[in-house]
Amino acid sequence: MQSIEKLKFLTAEQVRNLAKEYGTPIFVYSQAELERKCDEALAFPNAYGLTLRYAMKANPNANILKIIRKKGIQIDASSGYEVHRALLAGFTTAEIQLTSQEEPKDLKELIEKGVYFNACSLKQLENFGKMFPGHKVSLRFNPGLGSGHTKKTDVGGTTSAFGIWHEKTIELKAIIEKYKLIVEKVHTHIGSGSDPEVWKAVAHYTLEYAELFPTCKIVNLGGGFKVGRMEDEKSTDNTGCILASIDDKIDTGAQGFTFLKLDTGMDANTRPSLYGSRHPMVVVSKEESAEPSQSSTKEYVVVGHCCESGDVFTQKEGGEPIVREMQEAAIGDYVVMEGSGAYCSSMSTKNYNSFPETAEVLIDMKGNSHLIRRRQSLEQILQNEILL
Amino acid sequence: MQSIEKLKFLTAEQVRNLAKEYGTPIFVYSQAELERKCDEALAFPNAYGLTLRYAMKANPNANILKIIRKKGIQIDASSGYEVHRALLAGFTTAEIQLTSQEEPKDLKELIEKGVYFNACSLKQLENFGKMFPGHKVSLRFNPGLGSGHTKKTDVGGTTSAFGIWHEKTIELKAIIEKYKLIVEKVHTHIGSGSDPEVWKAVAHYTLEYAELFPTCKIVNLGGGFKVGRMEDEKSTDNTGCILASIDDKIDTGAQGFTFLKLDTGMDANTRPSLYGSRHPMVVVSKEESAEPSQSSTKEYVVVGHCCESGDVFTQKEGGEPIVREMQEAAIGDYVVMEGSGAYCSSMSTKNYNSFPETAEVLIDMKGNSHLIRRRQSLEQILQNEILL
Repeated sequence: MQSIEKLKFLTAEQVRNLAKEYGTPIFVYSQAELERKCDEALAFPNAYGLTLRYAMKANPNANILKIIRKKGIQIDASSGYEVHRALLAGFTTAEIQLTSQEEPKDLKELIEKGVYFNACSLKQLENFGKMFPGHKVSLRFNPGLGSGHTKKTDVGGTTSAFGIWHEKTIELKAIIEKYKLIVEKVHTHIGSGSDPEVWKAVAHYTLEYAELFPTCKIVNLGGGFKVGRMEDEKSTDNTGCILASIDDKIDTGAQGFTFLKLDTGMDANTRPSLYGSRHPMVVVSKEESAEPSQSSTKEYVVVGHCCESGDVFTQKEGGEPIVREMQEAAIGDYVVMEGSGAYCSSMSTKNYNSFPETAEVLIDMKGNSHLIRRRQSLEQILQNEILL
Repeated sequence: MQSIEKLKFLTAEQVRNLAKEYGTPIFVYSQAELERKCDEALAFPNAYGLTLRYAMKANPNANILKIIRKKGIQIDASSGYEVHRALLAGFTTAEIQLTSQEEPKDLKELIEKGVYFNACSLKQLENFGKMFPGHKVSLRFNPGLGSGHTKKTDVGGTTSAFGIWHEKTIELKAIIEKYKLIVEKVHTHIGSGSDPEVWKAVAHYTLEYAELFPTCKIVNLGGGFKVGRMEDEKSTDNTGCILASIDDKIDTGAQGFTFLKLDTGMDANTRPSLYGSRHPMVVVSKEESAEPSQSSTKEYVVVGHCCESGDVFTQKEGGEPIVREMQEAAIGDYVVMEGSGAYCSSMSTKNYNSFPETAEVLIDMKGNSHLIRRRQSLEQILQNEILL
């Protein structure tokens, strides 16, 4: 039997108050949880010093960036646009490392200002060398193996285009020699599966790459920490959720399913549609008096509001809906979708079905809520259209 | 052997000129192809009259809507926001039918203005009845079977939350009786697989539902027409493409793959990541003199520019990269991704990695190009953030 999920960082009363104050759907982030996770990462045991970098693609809201910066954590930017966004949020160029698949058109300018370059391909290294001969540089390697919970989240091995293939040492050394580059750092990334055995093997390889370059002083071990979002998974770290309302309840007969249809969808969280990702969902009654008891549960398929059959929050990889045991719910009740702090707002199919981008709310250290992103307006969706 | 794809509606010279004029990446739409497809649909054989409706979620740019409106085609809107967008593009309320999963908050106002309501659930019908007793209405049924090329694009059967389950006739008739509603139309939708046998069966059921209501005069048969995008598929209709540049070329050794990395990604077209959808891709040399010959081909994996391992344009469902035989390509060459007129700009993970929303260009009937959506600016991405 599935265990019923519980609220991770909000109380039922907070849920009702937030829904009344800001409307639904909204993202809600906890500063306390976020700071706690920063502290945990900063406490990683290390013998020779540790620099932590936040992959800001996960959630680039400036308020989140500012909290992370105050903790002394630096930035890993995956595009030139992210570099500018980090600068606007108060990071200095020295605190920003660029690890991008596409070479920004203003790369020269960014490096001149002091952004640190992590070369992800031979061509990137060659272009960097031409512009900055004799400069310090980091190299991203593809170590030939990786770890992801699906093929889609694995970023090592022959099937991955991320980083310089580990066998390219002759080509690599020729470029370094040609432009007298100083390799100060080597980087690997294994994906978000975080299999400890794979990570240990890759760390070993990373040290071997470092040995190729006498000037190398730093190893940069990248990898997502698989967040155990569900109660039946080990880790329960959680810094954000989506607060939604139940717009409809539909059933497909005795042999069928009961669906809860939310007022949010893949336009706020695309992870279930893309990866079959599971997010805990907790029902909170609209009325305080009618708090549902744990004993009264039902099996539901939870779906989004988009006219797209893939917009199912409880699905297997491949799209088949699966039921989730949840507190019994009525139309108008709230559903809190936990584990939605990262890769949800930033990676969603914003504006599909012309839904406006979802608002974001931060709960500060004192428990007070603040709007940190307004709900988008229809005018903003249309503002770049040019009518002929 | 795979057949090498050819350009569908642009010439190589046009590709180079468009890239120079607007930069890459851009969506390019052909008015001529769009009008031809409208004409084909308008010519469907029919005995008792035909009203065509465009599912505007596919591409809601106002210029596209205006072209479709001129052809006499009406609108199917999947959200209240889409209704407003259609009105702004010049449609009258009488030309708009609302078929939405989420009930718009301003439903009453929309109906009062003359929008036509297609009730998609018992709860929607009940709420409509309360507000508009005695009113004409359409009913969307879930006929108990559907057709999709994957589970994710199938919208009929017990696993689908779309429409009123076909066995709910007692509940349905009770609501209709209670509010004296006049059922004028019944609607079914089978998904985008468009298996003709399934469609015939569903059409038969739809006529049975119509028989339940003596006032019913219209049957509304919904379903996507599976667009054969590839050369090895039957249909080659195509009204839009993405014009991108090759930013990098990466290989993973003798046992590995060669990757073409484009300056676009899942932020412009999420279909391959979501559904393993195949889009034809044609290489166009940057230099006119160096037109690649059909005989010089290579096998590539084509990937996007996002730091996300799922951002692969040539992938199987499940995320495994597959090679595509293409014209031999160099960094800086263009890649035209065909079949990207619908469900690409509208359904993309806009702003992931902070990439700005992609611009759109329309080629008019005379062959002239016009910018119909500006590339988004970083300031626009940030405009709703509230810094504490």
